[in-house]
Order: sequence, then C-alpha cells, then structure tokens
Amino acid sequence: MMKAVVYQGHENMGIVLDVGSGVSLLKKGDRVVMPFNVADGRCRNCEKGRTAFCTGVNPGFAGGLHGYVAMGPYKGGQTQQIRVPYADFNCLLLPKGSANEADFILLSDIFPTGWHGVVLSGFKPGETIAVFGAGPVGLMGAYSATLRDASKVYVVDSVPERLAAAKKINCIPINFLEGDAIEAIIKHNGGMVDRSVDAVGYQASASDGKKEVPSIVLENCIKVTRPTGGIGVPGLYAPSDPGAPDSNSGKGMLLISFGKLFEKGLTIGTGQCNVKMYNRYLRDMIISGKAKPSFVISYEIGIDEASNAYVKFDKREDGYTKVLIHPKGPVEG
Amino acid sequence: MMKAVVYQGHENMGIVLDVGSGVSLLKKGDRVVMPFNVADGRCRNCEKGRTAFCTGVNPGFAGGLHGYVAMGPYKGGQTQQIRVPYADFNCLLLPKGSANEADFILLSDIFPTGWHGVVLSGFKPGETIAVFGAGPVGLMGAYSATLRDASKVYVVDSVPERLAAAKKINCIPINFLEGDAIEAIIKHNGGMVDRSVDAVGYQASASDGKKEVPSIVLENCIKVTRPTGGIGVPGLYAPSDPGAPDSNSGKGMLLISFGKLFEKGLTIGTGQCNVKMYNRYLRDMIISGKAKPSFVISYEIGIDEASNAYVKFDKREDGYTKVLIHPKGPVEG
Amino acid sequence: MMKAVVYQGHENMGIVLDVGSGVSLLKKGDRVVMPFNVADGRCRNCEKGRTAFCTGVNPGFAGGLHGYVAMGPYKGGQTQQIRVPYADFNCLLLPKGSANEADFILLSDIFPTGWHGVVLSGFKPGETIAVFGAGPVGLMGAYSATLRDASKVYVVDSVPERLAAAKKINCIPINFLEGDAIEAIIKHNGGMVDRSVDAVGYQASASDGKKEVPSIVLENCIKVTRPTGGIGVPGLYAPSDPGAPDSNSGKGMLLISFGKLFEKGLTIGTGQCNVKMYNRYLRDMIISGKAKPSFVISYEIGIDEASNAYVKFDKREDGYTKVLIHPKGPVEG
Amino acid sequence: MMKAVVYQGHENMGIVLDVGSGVSLLKKGDRVVMPFNVADGRCRNCEKGRTAFCTGVNPGFAGGLHGYVAMGPYKGGQTQQIRVPYADFNCLLLPKGSANEADFILLSDIFPTGWHGVVLSGFKPGETIAVFGAGPVGLMGAYSATLRDASKVYVVDSVPERLAAAKKINCIPINFLEGDAIEAIIKHNGGMVDRSVDAVGYQASASDGKKEVPSIVLENCIKVTRPTGGIGVPGLYAPSDPGAPDSNSGKGMLLISFGKLFEKGLTIGTGQCNVKMYNRYLRDMIISGKAKPSFVISYEIGIDEASNAYVKFDKREDGYTKVLIHPKGPVEG
Repeated sequence: MMKAVVYQGHENMGIVLDVGSGVSLLKKGDRVVMPFNVADGRCRNCEKGRTAFCTGVNPGFAGGLHGYVAMGPYKGGQTQQIRVPYADFNCLLLPKGSANEADFILLSDIFPTGWHGVVLSGFKPGETIAVFGAGPVGLMGAYSATLRDASKVYVVDSVPERLAAAKKINCIPINFLEGDAIEAIIKHNGGMVDRSVDAVGYQASASDGKKEVPSIVLENCIKVTRPTGGIGVPGLYAPSDPGAPDSNSGKGMLLISFGKLFEKGLTIGTGQCNVKMYNRYLRDMIISGKAKPSFVISYEIGIDEASNAYVKFDKREDGYTKVLIHPKGPVEG
Repeated sequence: MMKAVVYQGHENMGIVLDVGSGVSLLKKGDRVVMPFNVADGRCRNCEKGRTAFCTGVNPGFAGGLHGYVAMGPYKGGQTQQIRVPYADFNCLLLPKGSANEADFILLSDIFPTGWHGVVLSGFKPGETIAVFGAGPVGLMGAYSATLRDASKVYVVDSVPERLAAAKKINCIPINFLEGDAIEAIIKHNGGMVDRSVDAVGYQASASDGKKEVPSIVLENCIKVTRPTGGIGVPGLYAPSDPGAPDSNSGKGMLLISFGKLFEKGLTIGTGQCNVKMYNRYLRDMIISGKAKPSFVISYEIGIDEASNAYVKFDKREDGYTKVLIHPKGPVEG
Repeated sequence: MMKAVVYQGHENMGIVLDVGSGVSLLKKGDRVVMPFNVADGRCRNCEKGRTAFCTGVNPGFAGGLHGYVAMGPYKGGQTQQIRVPYADFNCLLLPKGSANEADFILLSDIFPTGWHGVVLSGFKPGETIAVFGAGPVGLMGAYSATLRDASKVYVVDSVPERLAAAKKINCIPINFLEGDAIEAIIKHNGGMVDRSVDAVGYQASASDGKKEVPSIVLENCIKVTRPTGGIGVPGLYAPSDPGAPDSNSGKGMLLISFGKLFEKGLTIGTGQCNVKMYNRYLRDMIISGKAKPSFVISYEIGIDEASNAYVKFDKREDGYTKVLIHPKGPVEG
Repeated sequence: MMKAVVYQGHENMGIVLDVGSGVSLLKKGDRVVMPFNVADGRCRNCEKGRTAFCTGVNPGFAGGLHGYVAMGPYKGGQTQQIRVPYADFNCLLLPKGSANEADFILLSDIFPTGWHGVVLSGFKPGETIAVFGAGPVGLMGAYSATLRDASKVYVVDSVPERLAAAKKINCIPINFLEGDAIEAIIKHNGGMVDRSVDAVGYQASASDGKKEVPSIVLENCIKVTRPTGGIGVPGLYAPSDPGAPDSNSGKGMLLISFGKLFEKGLTIGTGQCNVKMYNRYLRDMIISGKAKPSFVISYEIGIDEASNAYVKFDKREDGYTKVLIHPKGPVEG
C-alpha cells in the first residue's frame, strides 16, 4: 500500500520555472526532459557515462531516481512542480514550443531503456534479434532494433494488442500461447538469432500465461541466441521480491542454464539505462522525424484523471498501457 | 573410462613435416604452435574472429578441438605427429630454433585463455581485478592482468603453492580457507573491485575446500565486483555434468543472484577462448621478452614418462600442475 | 590506353560452375557475390578482418583486386567465367533464384564501401553527417547513414540528377555551385555536423566545378566537422597520379589544414573497404527488405552492349552512372 | 614578450583551502591534482568524456585551459593559490600526505597526454610502436606503451640525454642524426611498426636537426606505419603559427602524403588530451606502484627560483627539461 507522502512519477518533462545558483546552462522558460536517473555528473561512474549508477545522490548506493522511496530523496513529477538537482547535468534541452510532446516525454525512460536493451545485447546493424515482452519497454526495444536496421526483429508476447503494435513497426510477432516461441523463431529465421533482449524481468509468466516463472525469459534468451551472440537485460530484476513464487526468487536468485550459456560463448549485459548516454541523440532523431516513439502512448489525460487511470492501468483495462499525464503547469501565485 | 583409441593433447607445437596442397604460407621445417581450437577460417564465426565457435569443423556444433571425442575427428598431439587441418589458418609461425619453447607452447591454450578471461570481464588498464582460481588458467589470467597494468590483482585459491606463484607475479594472494575471501578483498582494496574472472568453472568447491558447489565462484564474482563492472568466465561450465552434486547442476543449471547482478548493472562474458584473437600478439610479447608465461610449468618430461606423470597430475602430487611433454620428434621412416 | 589483355570488372556475382579441391563450403549451382578485394583469409591482416590489405595475394603489397594490373593476377569479371581464389573465403552465398540481383551485385563494392565510409568517420546513430560526392559510392554512404539512423544527412554535389537521388532517400541535397556548401550546411544544421565522408577522392573539382583541386574535399570535411568529430575517407587517393594538376598532387601529396584538424581533435579514417566486414549483414538487410540499394543502378545491359555503354559512361551521358552487365552465363561446351 | 598580468602554469596540484557552494564532494584539506583542461562537466562534449573540448568554459570555442590568454579566463598555478571552477569535476582526489608528489603532478598533463597519444594511434597490447620525440610528452607516450605491453617501442630523437632516458624504460632509442630513422626502425623490427605517435608537433626539425620542417614527423609516421595501422597525434599543431618557416605552415597547413596514407588504410587520431578520461586510473597505477612517471622530472625547485629556471629551460641548459615548482603553500592571512 503506497503512503500518501510519496510523489510518484519518474518520467518527467516541463518548462524551467527558476534556476539555482549553480546552474550555468539552463534558462527560465527552457523546455526540458529529465532522465529518470538522478545523477551528480561528477562521481567516477558519471564521468564514465554510467549515470544510472551515480555514487553521489543516494548515500550508500549506486544510483538515484525520482519518485522512489529507496532511491534517494527525489520527489516524483506527478505534480505541478519538481525540483531537479544538478539541473544542467540532468535536464535535456528541447526545442521551444509544444511539438512532439508525446515523443519527447519518452526520452525520460522507455525509449532510451529500450535502446539500451539492444545495446546491452551487443547488437550490430543487419543482425537478427528477438525481444521478449511487448510492453512499453519491449516495444521501444523492438523499435530501436528496427531503427538500427536489424534484418529481422522478433517480438514475443501473449497480448494480441501488443503483438499488433509490434507488427505495425515491422517486427515479426510471436504469440507464446500459440506454440513454442523458440521453435517458431528458429523455424522462421532459419536458425537461432544473433541477439535477444529480456524486456520482461522477474515478473515473467510461464508459457500458459498464468504462473509466475522468474527465470523463463532468461532461459528462452539462452535457447534462442546463437553461439557468439549476446543477451541484453534492461528488464527489471531485483535482489529481493516479497511477492515471488518461491524463496530463491524471493532473494532474487534464479536457476539459469549456465552450462549452455558458456558452451555458446554468450555475453549478458544488464542494468538500468544510463539515459544520458542516449537521450541527446534520440532527441535529435525525433526532431528530424527519423524516430516517432509516441506510438506506444495509449492515452493522454489531465492530472485530475490520474487516480482513475491508475485503476484502469493496474487492470490493463481499455488499453491503458502507457499514459501521458498533463499536470497543467505550475500552481499560480 | 577413456578408450585406448583416443589421442589426447589439445596443446600442441612442433615442426612442419609436410604440407598439403591447399597450404600457401607454411613451409616444411617451420616451427609452429597450434590453437587448441580447430577452425576453418571461412565460416561466419571465423570471419568475425570467433574461431572457438567455427561452424565448419564439427557438423552440428559450433567449435572443434584437438583430442576430444565430441569435438570433431581431430587427434590430439601426445604423439610424434599430428595432422593440422586448414593449416595456414591454424598454425602460428614461431622463430626458428628452440628458444622459448616452454613459453610458446602456452600460446596453444592457457596464456590466451587467461588473457581472454580478462578481456571477457571488460577490463581496462589501471582497474582492479579479482581472479578466482590459481590453477594454470587462473595464473595466466592474473599474469595477463598484470601485463595489462591492472592497479591491483587479487588471486583467490586455497593451495599454498598456487598462492605463492601468484605472489611472485606481483598479485595479492587471498586464501579462502583463512577467512571470507570477499571481505578480505573489499577490505584490502577499500571497496569492491572493477572486474572479476572465474577461472574455476563448475567444479568449484565450497569454502571448506571440500564439497563441490558449482555456483560459488560466480556468486563470489557477483559479490566482489562493483556496480558498472564486469565478470569474465573463461572457466569451463558444461551443459551436462554426470558427476554433479545435484540434478540441476547435472544439467548445467546454476542458482545465481541475478537480482543483485542486475542491480549492479554487471556484464558477464563467457566461452572458450578464440586463441587466434590473441596468439600472434602474445607470441610477439614473448619474443621481445615482455612476457614469460612459462613460470607456470612445473615439469618437462619425455613422452615415455607421460603415463606416470598423468597419475601424479591426477593427484596433484609433487607439484604436477602443468607439464610439458617432449614427443621427441617424428617417427623415423 | 587499356591493353586488350586486361579483363575488367571488379564487381562480380554469378553461379558456381565448379569448385577446386580446397573448397569445403561452396557447391556447384550456388549463387554467390564476390568482394572486389581478393584475400587469402589466412594472413595477419585477414585474421583481423582487414581483407582489403591481405598480404598473401599480391607479393610485396598489402591488397589484391580483380581486374587491375597492379593488384595481382586476378582477372576481372566482365566475361562469362571467372576464377575465384580462396573461394570459400571470397564468395558470399546468396539465396537461390534470381531475386534482388541488382541489389546483391552492389555487395561487391559500393554498398559496403559507402557503409565503410560512414564507419571510418566514427559515426553513431542519431548523429549528423555530411557526405561529399553523390556518385555511386557517395549515394551508398548517404544511404548507409540513413539506414543507421543519422538524424540528418547532407549530400554535397553539383549534378542535379545525383542531388535528386539523394533527396529521394531522405537526405538534404547541397549544390556547391549554388553557394558555399559549408555555410549552407552549418546554417541548416544550426552548427557543424558530427561526421563527414569524403566520397570523392583526389579527382575533386574546385567550387566552379571545373578545375581539379585534389585537397578541396578534405579541406571542406575539416571545416564542416565539429570538434570531437570524425572524417571518413573511402574515396580513392593514390600515391601517384600522372594526370594531377601539379607536381605535389602528382605524388599524392596534399596541402591540409592540419592545425585546424588538431585544434578540433578530429579523427581521420581511410582506406579501401574490407568488404567481408559488412557484406553478410548487408545481404541479410537486402533479403529482409530493410535495404534496397539498387536505386543507384541506372541501366541493366547485356555484355554485348558493354563497349557502347562504356563510351556513354565516360561522358556520363544519358544517366550512365552505374550499369549492371549481364554476361549471359557460362560459355557452352 | 609575455605581459606581467598572465599567471602561467597549467599543470597544478595542491591542497583544498576552501570550497564554493556548488561543491558536494571535495573537502577542505583534500590533496588534489587538476587537469590542464578546464571543463564544466555538463556540456555535450563533457558528457561524452571529451573534456578537452568543453563548450561551456570559453565562449565561442571548444576547450578551456589554465594559464593561457586565448583559452578562457583561468589563471595559471605558478602562484600560491588557484581558483578551480567546477571543482568537483576538475579536481582528482589524491591520498593524504605527500607521497608520490612528483608522480601525481604529472597527472595534470603529460602522463595522460602521452597515454592519449598511444590511444589515438589505436594501439593494442603486443603491438609495435614508434614514438617520435623524446621530450616529456614523448617519453610519457613511450612509457605508456611500455606499461600497456607493447612488444617493441621505438623512440626517435636527436638529444642523447633523452634517448638515454628512453633506453632506461626499455625502449629502443633511434637517433635520427645517425642515419635514416625510418630505415633503422624497419630493419630492427623486421618490417614497419603497427602504430606511431607524433609527440613533436609543428615545431619539428629536419633530419639535420636545424631547419624547422613542420610536416616531417607526420610524413615519417606515414612511412613507418604498416598497412592497417594508426597514427596518434597528441603533439601540438596550431591553426596559425607566426614563426613558421613558410606561409602555408603559418596558416597551419601541411603538405602530407595523403595518397600513401590512404593506400595503407591508416587512421589518424588528433587533439588535446581529455585528461579526465585517464587520470583516475593512472593515479591508481601510481598508488599501487605499477607506474612511476616521475623519472622525467629533472629538477624540483621553489617558486622563488622559477624565473632563473625558465631561462635555463628556454636554453634546455643543465638538463632543465621538466621542472617541478613548489609554491610553498598559501599566503598567510
């Protein structure tokens, strides 16, 4: 049960209302979008671009976030105003006006996170790739692979609407309820794929779509990826999970076919996206019209409608998959 | 029980006695050393340098080896002569004469494999690294990290002679029987290390040095590696292990703290070494005196002494850790 | 004046008529396309993927080609049959049938060469890039940048048809006869571009389109590329040029603003394309419909029409820019 | 003639006397060393690690420095105190105490700059490399190549003391007054080297050691580097040089054998060192005793002796090559 004092919202954009004394680049009135990571830009991890693992914003831990209790004292953005620490470092400047709002907001998390998943897999243009999970991150991963000119992109899920969305962006949808997904991919592709992305994480379901089987997606990635290939894991795995189906996965421990992984010489890349590694370039692709990620957004609502929308989102009702909330600007004086 | 017809020996060097019609570079009398991988140099994996995963030498599998039953029809080299397929591709030319014999033979497997382990971890000069296992591969990994200018190299084992060898090459020995190895490293290093290498594989032992606990080294790698770091796994993990302590590890499945791995954003690199990626350059380092890996060799014997030496090697008696066998040249006409 | 004995044609594809004894992968009847580079697949440069610099096919020189007098004894393909040395290494398998013929033939040189130019510049997705020259290689470079999701691709030339072709593939055409090309790019882009490609080479013309000024394109690349950026040079520069406008450029020497280059911290990448680095993946992009480079081909003719076509090509008449010649199969019995 | 108001000194280290309000990591009393680059840590170039090309510290230019008139308003450190802007980003923390002072000060410029030169050449362990110039930067480049396990490092100069210093760190000294340096290297190495570094820059001398010939080192790099190799240029080239021997080099323009460069497929990397890319790791190598760059320092003096030392330095008298100045702490209240 969430306590009333938490301000949710880690995907934020808006207009600069005021700047602190340490700010040298931003100006009042600038339109900006912020990574979900909070980072100081001066620690050893930030200086290597690993802003998701900043050591300076959340004492005793590598990484800080807006709107999460254990991830530092940074309020979320589902409100009229938000304070952004180390603002020059954490704000990405957007063009004036209101164009591409629904695209730009996705620079905060899921577009870079999907892209990151593809990068973590070691993907190179022309290769084939399978993306497990066609939720917002999975679709963004599949879309990123398409933008980077994969020769074939398979998308595995069981929700017809999601698979339809994957097909619309020229991916090959694979419904795991309709047969063995691995066999289907290998047959269609004439062999295993070069790369795979786990965009599901620890809340994965068994092939009947019901029972939670935390390691099933990773196991499928190991099976479907060809020797010398790679697996990208942007999907969330946590070191503890109170709702896990068994005690091992409750401690974030998974049973993995490591022998097979080794025999194939696969690599695994994991972790939260360092949004700043990609957001500037993805922004430019949006501005020039080369990328239009907003196709994943199903609804745009005012902040007053948010609590109703959350109810529908929890039940995935009426296609409430990715919702853009307009906070309606700053509170007037 | 090994059958009599198997010719063992995957680490081979010698003098070219004759060349086939497809050979354009090698000449009779050349001194050469061969990678343990057999590769055709023309498949899609070879053309990317991934010669350990050649698709052309062992039908239905990616990778071939000298002297292994399931790895293609290639005899091992513990004999007077050996046939090397795709000889121009698989033979590395050595300087005339007999200098550095004990160093050059290590180019066949363990020096490149140790080096590969460090590469798989994503290591960069100046970083800190922990190598688990101080057998021949582990020592070569630690030595490689030293050559590549790691600021600190920790080597974890329980055998005093091995730890002494690690110390001799300027590494910091950690005896896991004398206390918690992870704690010892973190304390000495003032924090976790940047990289770790699992040079043990699936036959790892528990911290009492007795019970086999296949996932213990990987778990330690996850614990000791700092967020944003990487883990290299050149140590062997197999998809099936008849002698495993339980049914999961018998199928090559290990219980791994994947939640922690993800939280830290670690990478894992695995697989057999593509020897040709490194052997030419490691050879040049040996020739110029910058590398002298032969310190790991404990005995040099004639081939007639081999069966006696195998008995001692199996028991790790009298320091029989890495033995160089002289086959005494070709059988005379 | 070309001597009668030279067989021209470095861009070749066809059907395997017969295989030599060293061939293990190809079979009679296979459809294949060959890189313009001839490479042995076993020298130190080939083993690193640098097949354009093979040391084994052209004694005393790094690199061999089909159909060039000084580049080894390899006949060109404008004939009914061609012998391909090291055939497993040098032939890329294509799908059976005759689909995509006009696309696949471009895998022999210009599609990979254009792609290589972009790689040599250090390009990353989302960046901006200027390609100088909209001949076949330049168009392929611009097309490659588009496929790899450049946010903006500028193409500089003076021939209206070429600029129209660039516009068709979503690039921004810049006619250097209509004003200062550098100023035009910087103005449109709101600053210098991240990368530039010289797809012209030493036969560049001055801004009036007439006088040959061998260093003008490189100088423009240095001017238009922003600090920290990179320049790719797939366009041909030769160490001697009998027809050069002055004695320095006759020796392949150019006067370059090296001080400016250094101040900006630019990189320069040069050299013939190592076709095998890219052709397999570009082929897969063609097969899956993601790439369709054949738009650059202006004519398809029979080999009997070739000499007439060469006359028109020399004058760039009737749009004879890139011509596909059908040799009409092997000579019968 | 230098004006009195310039404070010289771009290589600075010291103790933190006080911190501004924007500082979150540094504390009074910390020992720190500063890169010669001044960088804001928040611009697009800094976020990619290219701190030598910061766009935020020197309006209208990419890059700022301590103690240079045209490189921003940042005073040099040959004084008792210095103000460091963006201090958390620009100060590298050192261990308490005074150990390794002469090593750590070199982290400010020449150790990272020498290392950078090797990186710019594309060097990989085991390769051979030729470093032109054995001044402080050249020696640091040669030393870096040695630390990174080059199989052979050639150092070209004409000053016997410098060549002796190169020999001491296990490099092969080549005196260009004693014969053709290129021939000597190729003969000793049995062929051209893999990489070369120009650590001289535009004030290079002809082979008689007298006349200034700005392009001679670059030309030698092109000659001595083997096909597929690379050239690193950390040595300074400027877009204008009032003292140049001719009008072209006065504009920073050099006549370069570009045809040869292209034929060999060489790369060129240039530019000021982004010190923060390397200083943390080089520091750790110093702390652990793996690196000891202070061998290049010929004198340590008090600041009162500085003007006398500059006179000697200008004449390279008494071995005044690299001098460490102790400013004797802060001015008392």
